[in-house]
Amino acid sequence: MALFISLEGCEGCGKSTQAKRLTAGLQRHGYRVTRTYEPGGTPLGEQLRRYLKKSRDAAISAEAELLLFAAARSQLTRNVILPALKQGHVVICDRYADSTVAYQGYGRGLPLDTIATVNHLATGGLQPDLVLLLDMDPSRALQRKKQPRDRFEHEVVEFHERVRYGYLELARSDPSRWTVIDASGSFARTTQYIWQTVSPLLDRYSLLQQSPE
Amino acid sequence: MALFISLEGCEGCGKSTQAKRLTAGLQRHGYRVTRTYEPGGTPLGEQLRRYLKKSRDAAISAEAELLLFAAARSQLTRNVILPALKQGHVVICDRYADSTVAYQGYGRGLPLDTIATVNHLATGGLQPDLVLLLDMDPSRALQRKKQPRDRFEHEVVEFHERVRYGYLELARSDPSRWTVIDASGSFARTTQYIWQTVSPLLDRYSLLQQSPE
Repeated sequence: MALFISLEGCEGCGKSTQAKRLTAGLQRHGYRVTRTYEPGGTPLGEQLRRYLKKSRDAAISAEAELLLFAAARSQLTRNVILPALKQGHVVICDRYADSTVAYQGYGRGLPLDTIATVNHLATGGLQPDLVLLLDMDPSRALQRKKQPRDRFEHEVVEFHERVRYGYLELARSDPSRWTVIDASGSFARTTQYIWQTVSPLLDRYSLLQQSPE
Repeated sequence: MALFISLEGCEGCGKSTQAKRLTAGLQRHGYRVTRTYEPGGTPLGEQLRRYLKKSRDAAISAEAELLLFAAARSQLTRNVILPALKQGHVVICDRYADSTVAYQGYGRGLPLDTIATVNHLATGGLQPDLVLLLDMDPSRALQRKKQPRDRFEHEVVEFHERVRYGYLELARSDPSRWTVIDASGSFARTTQYIWQTVSPLLDRYSLLQQSPE
């Protein structure tokens, strides 16, 4: 038995900070945790991350972008996430397949059914047990970033509004896996909300860990 | 009116040589030609080419491989092939989407319907007007290579047999676009066969070029 948790949300919502805090909290409770992120986490993923996030190459088509994120995801799933889950780790992933639905689907307008096919190819059907959506007004979230640093942070606010709408649609359509966290307050408050969501799952997870096969 | 010709076939069948000869022949007849190849032909494509062909990283999953080839194809299609066709060039491409069906589908066993979806995303539905399949026994073709230089040339002969079978299936299923060329003879003989296939198309193409709108 293992647990796979992803954090989703727009730029500036605090995902990376919360992923680190959640990892530390779980480790304090004795859980073995693998924390990773997308795109990245493997040699190929890191190469693609530099290209996708840092490149100012406006000539990257939306289609190529989708395919590159999916390639990085495929490597991360097979070489990092699945092995960690097999070893009984809690896996905390900063973004996963749902980011592609929100950004390349709702944000850039690529067909959702094509994205579903590509995501299924990349993940082999793996889904997080819990998706934590750190939700807040994108224009306020972007203000938290001192200066726009990557291609996505340079996008107009309407793009980020579409991404947020996409995320909320996903959460609405699958409430058993998704939890929407209000991320508009302080980081400490958000950390508290996340722990309130995760800890009941851990009780169940611990019971399952202890139960006979 | 423009013409899009791809060359397909296994390693060592002579595609690159024939693509150059066909380009030279067309230029001698006054055609404007854009010759390109996969993976490559764009800044992203060249990066991915180095990774896909030269990497000894056995940990590249078949799925990631498929997605990276498709990403390179997406960039090549939008930034090179479509603009050249719009300018009325004959485009000669050393490998295109059918390579993915043969290699990742028949060769590596990924589902053909998923590959069709990914290819359609990458190409936007563009297909070559003519596919020249340079067919020969893969074990003889591989002997032409002095030493195996890339990941695909290192594959066992059974892999290349499956790829060949895949190509022949594709040719059988769409004879109006595919022509199977016997590439087991000399390069000069193969060049001759190719010209015999392409020149009737050119007559039609020239008539269309001259015809009133």
